Amino acid sequence: MIKIVLIGGGNVASHLANQFIDSKDVQLVQIYNRNILKIEKFKSVTKITNDIQKLEKADIYIIAISDNAISYFSKNLNLKDKLVVHTSGALNLNCLKSDSKKGVFYPLQSFSKNIKIDFSKVPICIEAKNEKDYKLLEKLAKSLKSPVYNVSSEKREKLHVAAVFVNNFTNHLYHLGEEICNSEKLPFDILKPLIKETSNKIKNISPKDTQTGPARRNDTNTIKKHLNLLTKNQQEIYTLLSNSITKMYGEKL
Amino acid sequence: MIKIVLIGGGNVASHLANQFIDSKDVQLVQIYNRNILKIEKFKSVTKITNDIQKLEKADIYIIAISDNAISYFSKNLNLKDKLVVHTSGALNLNCLKSDSKKGVFYPLQSFSKNIKIDFSKVPICIEAKNEKDYKLLEKLAKSLKSPVYNVSSEKREKLHVAAVFVNNFTNHLYHLGEEICNSEKLPFDILKPLIKETSNKIKNISPKDTQTGPARRNDTNTIKKHLNLLTKNQQEIYTLLSNSITKMYGEKL
Repeated sequence: MIKIVLIGGGNVASHLANQFIDSKDVQLVQIYNRNILKIEKFKSVTKITNDIQKLEKADIYIIAISDNAISYFSKNLNLKDKLVVHTSGALNLNCLKSDSKKGVFYPLQSFSKNIKIDFSKVPICIEAKNEKDYKLLEKLAKSLKSPVYNVSSEKREKLHVAAVFVNNFTNHLYHLGEEICNSEKLPFDILKPLIKETSNKIKNISPKDTQTGPARRNDTNTIKKHLNLLTKNQQEIYTLLSNSITKMYGEKL
Repeated sequence: MIKIVLIGGGNVASHLANQFIDSKDVQLVQIYNRNILKIEKFKSVTKITNDIQKLEKADIYIIAISDNAISYFSKNLNLKDKLVVHTSGALNLNCLKSDSKKGVFYPLQSFSKNIKIDFSKVPICIEAKNEKDYKLLEKLAKSLKSPVYNVSSEKREKLHVAAVFVNNFTNHLYHLGEEICNSEKLPFDILKPLIKETSNKIKNISPKDTQTGPARRNDTNTIKKHLNLLTKNQQEIYTLLSNSITKMYGEKL
């Protein structure tokens, strides 16, 4: 049984808490949050506190708070010889300033408040400074049935940028698509089957090989026509992404 | 029973042919293609030809060939009083130069050679110059169990650009994500659950409301850090899309 103290009251912390509560191999001993109201919903299943001096004993202390608070918060932890990990994709292991053993337990997924996530499909990127701690984090990830990846801080930083491209920027392209639909009083629903198919296609085929469209065909007539239909902001994005596609496939616009 | 002559041997034509063959309300009387080898696979279920002078009688002639060939091809059709439609998202109805009745039957989906498509999820955008032809095209779309949208040429052109954003450009972002993974010798598989979740989220929530990430938070430190990890091409795209997100949500970088 792995004993966990969880620190945080946001999306990642809440999703992890629910997983730990359900897992037979994990005992969630306590949740800490500065604002106790945000974790009151867990009062019936575990101890909760907002007093940093009253953390319970555990095998792993998981800090799932916002990136910019982790360093400062970890400085105040008095957990010598304990394993303290953060859950951030963007931050180096060494941003943890606790006088403790250190690690990272990064679930690579986008968590929303009311959307349930199947953890058996969430890749967990782990890192630790020694083999024993690594094995413990691996065991924790496996108790959630998650696929485990050994990812160093340097690689994880890059991976986090890649995640920004395929998640945040992709979502923004959806937003621009919706904006164009709205301007024509067309329902955004009309694009949803295409969005689904686009994301499905790359399951088994590299996106390099599924690329289609005017830029891939170097179809400058269609590109020109499209640019005439767009706002300035949409035009800039259309041009840059089309150029990037054309360059990638070795042709010039 | 709607009688169809289908013109073309590419992806859209082949997918449509298979649907028509399966539909009880449609009779696929003939397929024409310049290169007869590409349609030989249909020889056992319908007539095939590569002779434009030998088109059979039908209610609708569907031209599913590449955009840049439609105008020239349609000029040579001798189908007075017949309904001739094209299947292009990008082209105006008037690009059809046949001396016939005209319409558009545009299935808004990305078709690949070996991936089966569920037509009951493919929005069909239709357009015709008179009510009777429109009703016939609507009946045809409904025989495939597809959702039908009445979309004018002007709106369809815009819709086609929106499709480029959510399909072609999104696929390119996946490609850039894979490129970053490759440079770190990380498997692209690690990003696939995130890609799936990103496309799932917008099923019921506007992408405007699902936007997350450094640009949405106006987190300039993370943005600067990310830019340092990227190639010049990736940097340009990262910067432009981040600026667009930040502008959209009313803050300045």
